[in-house]
Amino acid sequence: MIEVFKTTTVEQMEADSDRLHETAEKLGIDTWQDRVKKQTPHCGFGEKGVCCRICSMGPCRITPKSPKGICGATADTIAGRNYLRMVAAGASAHSDHGRECVHKLYDASEDGYYHVTDSAKLLKLAEEWGVPTEGRDLYDIARDVARIGLGEYGKIEGVQNFLSRATEERRKVWKEQEIEPRAIDREVVTAMHMTHMGCTADPEALVRQSLRTGLADGWGGSMAGTEISDILYGTPMPRETEGNLGVLDKDMVNIICHGHDPAVSEMIVLVAESREMQEYARSCGAKGINIAGLCCTANEIAMRHGIKMVGNFLQQENALLTGVVEAIVVDVQCIFPNIGPLAECFHTKFFTTSPIARIPKSEYLELTSHNARDVALKIVRDACENYKNRDESKIFIPEHKHKAAVGYSCEGIKSRLDAVTNSFVDTLDTYKPLIECIKSGVLRGAVAMVGCNNPKVRPDYSHIEIMKRLLENDIIVVATGCAAQAASKAGLLDKRAKVFCGEGLRRVCTLADIPPVLHMGSCVDISRMMLLVTGIAKDWGIDTTQLPAVGCAPEWMSEKAVSIANYVVATGIDVYLGIDPLVSGSEKMMELITQGTRQMVGAGYTINTDPEQLVKAMIDGIEAKRAALGI
Amino acid sequence: MIEVFKTTTVEQMEADSDRLHETAEKLGIDTWQDRVKKQTPHCGFGEKGVCCRICSMGPCRITPKSPKGICGATADTIAGRNYLRMVAAGASAHSDHGRECVHKLYDASEDGYYHVTDSAKLLKLAEEWGVPTEGRDLYDIARDVARIGLGEYGKIEGVQNFLSRATEERRKVWKEQEIEPRAIDREVVTAMHMTHMGCTADPEALVRQSLRTGLADGWGGSMAGTEISDILYGTPMPRETEGNLGVLDKDMVNIICHGHDPAVSEMIVLVAESREMQEYARSCGAKGINIAGLCCTANEIAMRHGIKMVGNFLQQENALLTGVVEAIVVDVQCIFPNIGPLAECFHTKFFTTSPIARIPKSEYLELTSHNARDVALKIVRDACENYKNRDESKIFIPEHKHKAAVGYSCEGIKSRLDAVTNSFVDTLDTYKPLIECIKSGVLRGAVAMVGCNNPKVRPDYSHIEIMKRLLENDIIVVATGCAAQAASKAGLLDKRAKVFCGEGLRRVCTLADIPPVLHMGSCVDISRMMLLVTGIAKDWGIDTTQLPAVGCAPEWMSEKAVSIANYVVATGIDVYLGIDPLVSGSEKMMELITQGTRQMVGAGYTINTDPEQLVKAMIDGIEAKRAALGI
Repeated sequence: MIEVFKTTTVEQMEADSDRLHETAEKLGIDTWQDRVKKQTPHCGFGEKGVCCRICSMGPCRITPKSPKGICGATADTIAGRNYLRMVAAGASAHSDHGRECVHKLYDASEDGYYHVTDSAKLLKLAEEWGVPTEGRDLYDIARDVARIGLGEYGKIEGVQNFLSRATEERRKVWKEQEIEPRAIDREVVTAMHMTHMGCTADPEALVRQSLRTGLADGWGGSMAGTEISDILYGTPMPRETEGNLGVLDKDMVNIICHGHDPAVSEMIVLVAESREMQEYARSCGAKGINIAGLCCTANEIAMRHGIKMVGNFLQQENALLTGVVEAIVVDVQCIFPNIGPLAECFHTKFFTTSPIARIPKSEYLELTSHNARDVALKIVRDACENYKNRDESKIFIPEHKHKAAVGYSCEGIKSRLDAVTNSFVDTLDTYKPLIECIKSGVLRGAVAMVGCNNPKVRPDYSHIEIMKRLLENDIIVVATGCAAQAASKAGLLDKRAKVFCGEGLRRVCTLADIPPVLHMGSCVDISRMMLLVTGIAKDWGIDTTQLPAVGCAPEWMSEKAVSIANYVVATGIDVYLGIDPLVSGSEKMMELITQGTRQMVGAGYTINTDPEQLVKAMIDGIEAKRAALGI
Repeated sequence: MIEVFKTTTVEQMEADSDRLHETAEKLGIDTWQDRVKKQTPHCGFGEKGVCCRICSMGPCRITPKSPKGICGATADTIAGRNYLRMVAAGASAHSDHGRECVHKLYDASEDGYYHVTDSAKLLKLAEEWGVPTEGRDLYDIARDVARIGLGEYGKIEGVQNFLSRATEERRKVWKEQEIEPRAIDREVVTAMHMTHMGCTADPEALVRQSLRTGLADGWGGSMAGTEISDILYGTPMPRETEGNLGVLDKDMVNIICHGHDPAVSEMIVLVAESREMQEYARSCGAKGINIAGLCCTANEIAMRHGIKMVGNFLQQENALLTGVVEAIVVDVQCIFPNIGPLAECFHTKFFTTSPIARIPKSEYLELTSHNARDVALKIVRDACENYKNRDESKIFIPEHKHKAAVGYSCEGIKSRLDAVTNSFVDTLDTYKPLIECIKSGVLRGAVAMVGCNNPKVRPDYSHIEIMKRLLENDIIVVATGCAAQAASKAGLLDKRAKVFCGEGLRRVCTLADIPPVLHMGSCVDISRMMLLVTGIAKDWGIDTTQLPAVGCAPEWMSEKAVSIANYVVATGIDVYLGIDPLVSGSEKMMELITQGTRQMVGAGYTINTDPEQLVKAMIDGIEAKRAALGI
């Protein structure tokens, strides 16, 4: 079967960016492309992780002639401490996002702004956590669950509740290695204390705490974020939407939701889709309201509502440069401070909504459980009224966009697997059909593509090239965050993209009616991936570390990614990085993160900035896992 | 009255260091003096706070030609985020130290290794926190208090309990400014999240969170550290000891306790002072065991047991270079990683005891509530057995040492004030006699001298010169941490040092039988200073910010100091810094920390690296406060 389906190439995306950059130049505003030029070359000490700013005796920098900082810290110590601090910051960001979700659940009520949407998931979690459910009001149960959830951040004894979801072997490893995370916030504070001047200097201890702090994120805060978001806003199930800049609509009021916590974007979507607001938009001269997501917010609202996706991290300035964005609403994380001055070059209104992300040149409307609808109404109304203020001379919307199938939560994936199961013979709601495909070699394995995009490499290129090579090799891809967005922009979330697959994977895509890259959500949803590999391992009867599955962050940028990499490795899954983790100035640290953790938890990093070599290493890694399993 | 009393000058201290450095040179080992030379000049971007390493797109550095990082972060944003992260790390270190103290209280029992020593203080705290006491076992009360104490780190609602101790005006300011700290760990995580890539870019919001995180330390974790240490090990009361390198004894087994948490050093002192161990030392050929403290551990055990003090932060290598140290035992914070290789040049055994401070080339013996005495016994025994391994050719003990009166906790200060009170007329247990001295002008005011020493300036020189100038001007000095140690080394804790005072202060010293510099403890004990100014303000009937009292950290080095500076300012006390707070690359940040916080909380920083100018500014500040009070 020959299907005429073409992806959007990175060259095409770059041409779109170049055209939009012309607008920026005309307006005299800089974009990341300009700033990268001015910031290159970067400081080699920082890139190698051997710059220490942890006390005011310094900064100190390690060179062959000055091999120690003033306190005596070596390159190993300095790089190790910097690395653990990245994890601490990343875990803080993810987990605090999770905490906000739990707070929303705590505040949820029948007549409030936030509701329980997936009551089955709530009841399941209540059961898991020992909250009585029988004959009780749903919102009373929700509050009890939320109290326990909030307690996970600060409880004075015990380890994370979600650890009990892992395979028995994993739990044993975590216990033996003394990396079971206690209260989430405490692990961050421990990390910050250990890295304080005059505390831990031993890189192995720093790496161990990195794993533990990462686990507090992945099997703590992030998992809470995902779980509670599903309860509040619904567990994502497969649905269709579109991605890339072409989703912006010249005749509509365009509102961009950017950030991470769905509490804001959910409310914007709800309000914007109301008849009242659609009519208001028409009264303002537009055909209606077009909500579009950016970054992980795109993932959240696409997964649950089929909202269109403008793109990923490095697309945020492009979106505004189209000149058709009436409002950009942000919550937390990955928001360029440059959005402020850039929005000022257009009619675009820039709304910040969280005390965690206060940004100059924005209008700040703190969104809480108690005013959420009012804030959302004001934003949507302001956006409608702003439609008339567009400057036609500044408008250019690139045409590229693709269909995108999204919504592949674990439940979503299982629903597709159930569809190919003979319900008379097989058990439903398991990963067994997928395991059979892997065992038989129809699928060779799976890769979780995650992480940001980053001008340190050619943005999106690594994502897209690696995915294509994996698909050719019958390796199915699951993706989250900006990796999922890269796939969306390129067209790899279009079911027709199966044409790029090897025969085995193509057949699986056809039978299960899925695209070859499964969109699993936002960056906190990498916790879904942990539950996916755990579920597969359990159904298979092996440990996660034995699976022919690996993680890959070819263009990671944020500290969250370092936290993620740590919990993925701690879960026994090898991680392939396309960006150096900023410790190359320490041989010992490089050895620890690439080899040392394999002794501790059975997995480690492979680092290669060349996507060709990185994907080759991944395929080899998957084949080696297969060989070890005898399949 | 002419008394023949001379201080030890900085020149003399430096001569001692130079002589010890000759040993280091002979042994081919570097010390901080060598490393400073190799690390100078420091990176200007780091020093100015305009180097951003918060994501892997960078590092980015701000220059006139590249005024924004790749994300668009300006110098204001970058410096502000770096600043808040310093506070987060400092608050983590202090507060986690406090948490360990609370854990020890939780584990305390009649027949365990840790006991309640100040039961009155425990009962007072129990009452403050609503723990029933009547007819209950002391250790049951202790456990209940400890549970609440541990809860302060992670509680899911409410603000810090200790805030209720502040003046009414302060509490109002904190509420209005929205800087009341919630759970301690949560404030750290909030700070780390706010400073994550793409979150808060507004420097004012970053400064506000710095104040809040600082308050979580000073009126949370640090206050817990002090309070619970007093309960466990006794509230310090005035006593005499000695300070400086001359306290090391050639004929004794010298054991140095270095770090912060008294849990380790208390146990070492207890064991070393036992008849059994003293005899063991003699059986090993020594005259006995000489415990000496370094850094804040010195302060802790000097305040409670009169243990001698070797000196402060930059003295740690000197101590080992004497060649007479059989063992150095450390817990957490401010420990040079260079202690490892340096100890190897001697017979000195280097013991680490905390998972928070794992240091290469040490023997690690984790000390817990359940093995504390065994670990201490092993260390003391090993030290005794190590006496015979000294290399005579490497020995040099500088002779300088001074008497030092220590133990001026709030209770200790009040006990001295009670002694000058007419018990027939006046109320006891108040600060009223002190207030009268200040009102009448016999004392002009008070300065809290705190913080580390730092080779960025001439170490100890600023401390000592500033203290002397203050004393001349009838300004009483209270000191903690390495500032107190500087005073001890110089002789300013000797009661005879009143000869350096103006007439008014000299008379007060004579009447109250105190030295002119009152040693209030370790760096967590700056919480004592907060209670001191609060107590004085309450007895006076004014707010803390009105008092003619300021704080000064002329040579601060660690991130803890930045956290401290924030809570001192938030408490309404101006802070004078002799080391730049690493934000000078941002005009806005400089404006915020020197002026902006005065609008928020009524106090701010004055920064001057010249001690002469700094002390002048302080005296002017104190006189201005007096004028405003009309005294």
